[in-house]
Amino acid sequence: MGQQCSAVIIGVGPERGLGATLAKRFSAEGLHVFIAGRSEEKLQQVARSIMQQGGTVTCVVTDATQEHDICHLFEVIQLNTAALQIAVYNVDSNIPAPILETETEIFAQLWQQNCLGAFLFAKEAIACMQPNRQGTLFFTGATASLRAKPPFTAFASAKAALRALAQGLAREFSPEGIHVVHTIIDGVINGDRAAQQFPEYYQSKGEQGLLKLEAIADTYWSIHCQHPSAWTHELDLRPFKEPF
Amino acid sequence: MGQQCSAVIIGVGPERGLGATLAKRFSAEGLHVFIAGRSEEKLQQVARSIMQQGGTVTCVVTDATQEHDICHLFEVIQLNTAALQIAVYNVDSNIPAPILETETEIFAQLWQQNCLGAFLFAKEAIACMQPNRQGTLFFTGATASLRAKPPFTAFASAKAALRALAQGLAREFSPEGIHVVHTIIDGVINGDRAAQQFPEYYQSKGEQGLLKLEAIADTYWSIHCQHPSAWTHELDLRPFKEPF
Amino acid sequence: MGQQCSAVIIGVGPERGLGATLAKRFSAEGLHVFIAGRSEEKLQQVARSIMQQGGTVTCVVTDATQEHDICHLFEVIQLNTAALQIAVYNVDSNIPAPILETETEIFAQLWQQNCLGAFLFAKEAIACMQPNRQGTLFFTGATASLRAKPPFTAFASAKAALRALAQGLAREFSPEGIHVVHTIIDGVINGDRAAQQFPEYYQSKGEQGLLKLEAIADTYWSIHCQHPSAWTHELDLRPFKEPF
Amino acid sequence: MGQQCSAVIIGVGPERGLGATLAKRFSAEGLHVFIAGRSEEKLQQVARSIMQQGGTVTCVVTDATQEHDICHLFEVIQLNTAALQIAVYNVDSNIPAPILETETEIFAQLWQQNCLGAFLFAKEAIACMQPNRQGTLFFTGATASLRAKPPFTAFASAKAALRALAQGLAREFSPEGIHVVHTIIDGVINGDRAAQQFPEYYQSKGEQGLLKLEAIADTYWSIHCQHPSAWTHELDLRPFKEPF
Repeated sequence: MGQQCSAVIIGVGPERGLGATLAKRFSAEGLHVFIAGRSEEKLQQVARSIMQQGGTVTCVVTDATQEHDICHLFEVIQLNTAALQIAVYNVDSNIPAPILETETEIFAQLWQQNCLGAFLFAKEAIACMQPNRQGTLFFTGATASLRAKPPFTAFASAKAALRALAQGLAREFSPEGIHVVHTIIDGVINGDRAAQQFPEYYQSKGEQGLLKLEAIADTYWSIHCQHPSAWTHELDLRPFKEPF
Repeated sequence: MGQQCSAVIIGVGPERGLGATLAKRFSAEGLHVFIAGRSEEKLQQVARSIMQQGGTVTCVVTDATQEHDICHLFEVIQLNTAALQIAVYNVDSNIPAPILETETEIFAQLWQQNCLGAFLFAKEAIACMQPNRQGTLFFTGATASLRAKPPFTAFASAKAALRALAQGLAREFSPEGIHVVHTIIDGVINGDRAAQQFPEYYQSKGEQGLLKLEAIADTYWSIHCQHPSAWTHELDLRPFKEPF
Repeated sequence: MGQQCSAVIIGVGPERGLGATLAKRFSAEGLHVFIAGRSEEKLQQVARSIMQQGGTVTCVVTDATQEHDICHLFEVIQLNTAALQIAVYNVDSNIPAPILETETEIFAQLWQQNCLGAFLFAKEAIACMQPNRQGTLFFTGATASLRAKPPFTAFASAKAALRALAQGLAREFSPEGIHVVHTIIDGVINGDRAAQQFPEYYQSKGEQGLLKLEAIADTYWSIHCQHPSAWTHELDLRPFKEPF
Repeated sequence: MGQQCSAVIIGVGPERGLGATLAKRFSAEGLHVFIAGRSEEKLQQVARSIMQQGGTVTCVVTDATQEHDICHLFEVIQLNTAALQIAVYNVDSNIPAPILETETEIFAQLWQQNCLGAFLFAKEAIACMQPNRQGTLFFTGATASLRAKPPFTAFASAKAALRALAQGLAREFSPEGIHVVHTIIDGVINGDRAAQQFPEYYQSKGEQGLLKLEAIADTYWSIHCQHPSAWTHELDLRPFKEPF
């Protein structure tokens, strides 16, 4: 009988969010899931939902930008005997503003959340995966990863930094058997966050203009299942109705 | 009982080639496959192999660069009652040479095979798919699609032209429900062609340095299965050992 | 006393056009200019204007897509004792259309004019420049060189092919002292062509929204003057008011 | 009599460095130059050299990553009556290392120096330039701005962040008459820094394989002189011998 495997997702918030959906999907595939995020309440809610569908889950309250928190998260993961198969850096923080109205603190925070946290998380995840010479490391990018448009300049700068980090990691660790993936979510996700943060924009898209959470999770799973002889490093995902 | 569906692949050559492998895979998923290529003998061999695994197949000898041939191929497809679900433009023609030694005829031929044929094929495939408002149209690209390096300049020019064509088609037809995909095969495929065309290079790569045919086909299939709310237009595929 | 130098520009049409403006500018810098294009009348008019400002000029009626014409053009150039310093491929042909309404002939013609002609021209220009181990070879690109948007898909495919050609040439011939440059004209040129071909769009841009011919020529000249230790291969040019 | 104009360059170090060379060049064109950097001694040396060639200069010891320092720099600039014509963010900090051996502090520092400082500097420079509706803002990028290769992953991440910032600024402020330029220095500069930091690599390049400081400065100046109807936002600069 095979050893159980595990996945860790950081950036798990509301149940109708990408982090939670990935956790549920990986759980449904038989993996133990570690879910990490800043809100204990939200983690608990997602955990209940995973357990109700028969999965096992560990919640770890984590601020992705704090090295101490990331280290603690991976200490918890290492205590577990399940081999870490998947690690997803799903933190995504976006505060639109004209540049002259962007405070230094905000500019730095967007970078810390979208990129520095990814660096901290990646180092620990890779250290976990190296002994097994396998595992998939996902970074969730956005339209802005490729193009900087006001008022999203600060966000784009942070996402471009993340993209380059992911590319460098792929070049460094693919030969060791670690699959590094950067996804470009080009559009609005049909989840709680956009519905609350940009309600009018969200409405204007209509259901066909939004990315379904489960559809994104399907692709993450199939990319994880790719044979190492034909790995994808980067791919875009957008609703068929989305202009680009 | 559901209507049978079909797929068409153009650029089907040796059995250990990408065209043949995609045909076998789509057949294994229950689709009737139309296979097209210049060599009747090779098509027949692939067809036998598909039938042996229980599939149904139609061979159409086709030169992808000849409008008349492409029209005839789609007339055959239209006679069939199966809805066309997948169309793959898999023609790939590469003749490395320094630019000053590249004959005009060769420069033109590479463009005709890698790009003009794709244009002819796409127009017919889209016309077939539009009434059903669905279908996936694949174009097989290469490393050179993104970077022109001598002695592959003529090839890169043709592949860049193909990539732009695919991108324009995606923008034009995605909203109509047609999924347009451009794959970037970044490496050497473990098939008959590279083994024969570049035997030393092929050997030097070793098995871990080559793309497995079946692994590529897995990804084509899962991209075809994507929900329209989260479609991928472009993705790269490379062996984990491949430097990039 | 130094030997006179020369420049050749192909794609010279109306006087208020980029080809003519480059010719006048290079002439003003002291170069003998060879101007090539399909209309003898237009060439003569540009030639008169160059001679009026004290320059010397040779007109060669040339269809850039005809190998025979290109060879003849360079035979004329080789008869001259002036060393060829600059060669500009400035042919730009754009016929917007939805893909399903784009005739094969039009798709092929756009490629022939935007890319095949550049290949023919580049081979001859490089052969002229190689003995001197110097010279600048310009290719005029467009917004569509980087992005394919309907109804410009066929044009974008041809321009992407040109861009890859230029990139491969730069990699192959820079080490031999030949400077290969690809410009991306991202906007509408304030010349006769746009005024006639897209009068309403042209008007809507306003003077500040259009590229001034002389301003483009200034940049071509300063790029030509770059020291070989710091050459530019690619640069964009757009009006300050142009959204991008 | 015209009002004198000024330029500010941050990231001025050794005399044989890009910052110092740009300062000398802008001074030779008649601009008063403000030079900023961390080492008072190096600034003084560059200042002497500028004054010896007849220019006027103000030194401001500045740590580009410190908001307070940047604000102070621009207070000094604002005291002067010369209109700020050029602002160059020339800070470039590169510490190669495998990712698992890259300390968090180093990762953060590279971002602060290559990107955060640029953000602080750009805000102040733009505020200075807006009332005149003119000025050129340069950001010096590198090969790594476009590609992340180990052991330069952290550097590449920071440079990609800078590039996106520059792109967003160009989109936001070009319409207001501020020219935002991102240069990609693709190669090794023939200056003191590379000679000291990577002596063997520097030697191996040979003189023809290195970017001449004055040649880079020529291009910065001619880009600054571009007419607003045909502005360049991004361009690469590399030695003709450099493979790319």
